[in-house]
Amino acid sequence: MSAAPQLQAVYETVLYGPDLAALAAFYTELFGLSRIEGGPPDLLVACRVPDGGVLLLFDPAAASASGREVPAHGATGPGHVAFRVSPEQLAAWREHLERHGVEIEREVRWSEDLRSIYVRDPAGNSVEFANGDLWA
Amino acid sequence: MSAAPQLQAVYETVLYGPDLAALAAFYTELFGLSRIEGGPPDLLVACRVPDGGVLLLFDPAAASASGREVPAHGATGPGHVAFRVSPEQLAAWREHLERHGVEIEREVRWSEDLRSIYVRDPAGNSVEFANGDLWA
Repeated sequence: MSAAPQLQAVYETVLYGPDLAALAAFYTELFGLSRIEGGPPDLLVACRVPDGGVLLLFDPAAASASGREVPAHGATGPGHVAFRVSPEQLAAWREHLERHGVEIEREVRWSEDLRSIYVRDPAGNSVEFANGDLWA
Repeated sequence: MSAAPQLQAVYETVLYGPDLAALAAFYTELFGLSRIEGGPPDLLVACRVPDGGVLLLFDPAAASASGREVPAHGATGPGHVAFRVSPEQLAAWREHLERHGVEIEREVRWSEDLRSIYVRDPAGNSVEFANGDLWA
């Protein structure tokens, strides 16, 4: 197989949920991601991630409809995403989530310094906060 | 609502597919992502993305089993991911994909300079290559 050209980064990461308004509120109001205007609001909400990437939230039924300008997709059931936070911010996230009534489902200590906390978004997706490169 | 602490980046992006070996071959051999050792091979394959993030490929049945160290998840149906490539690499990707028998499902020209090409991975996930910041 010939060598692949270069990929720079994951640009769009996608999560799905049937209640798009609730999902959008979770990631914009609670997580503080800025909403990017432009998507049809019954189809998707786009959120800017600080490193230049985008988190796209889709209604899976609308996303799987044929006839859109882009290919159809749309998964159901709980997905997963992990966000990277600085080591000194992980405790601040735990406190922020608990203050706003979001249950910490699990905390995993991978090593002396590396740990993750896990919560659920309103669609049931498993959302992780990792304070370093767990896969190094 | 109190201001959220800082999120640095999306660290783990997830795709699912029941044939994990086929999915892993697609992203490691065809896409050239390096495989990170460590995951139980019947559960997940982790791939390093050049910007420091990780693409995780999961068997949704195995990932949704309870009793793992981390919370269960597992979506079914076609998901979506977009990779960012440099403007000069988009044509190289089109050629690479076609040379290896991967059909270009769609090409969208968003503006004079911005465009995306779309293919399907072996699990039917919609995979996009974007040559710039489409959401700017």
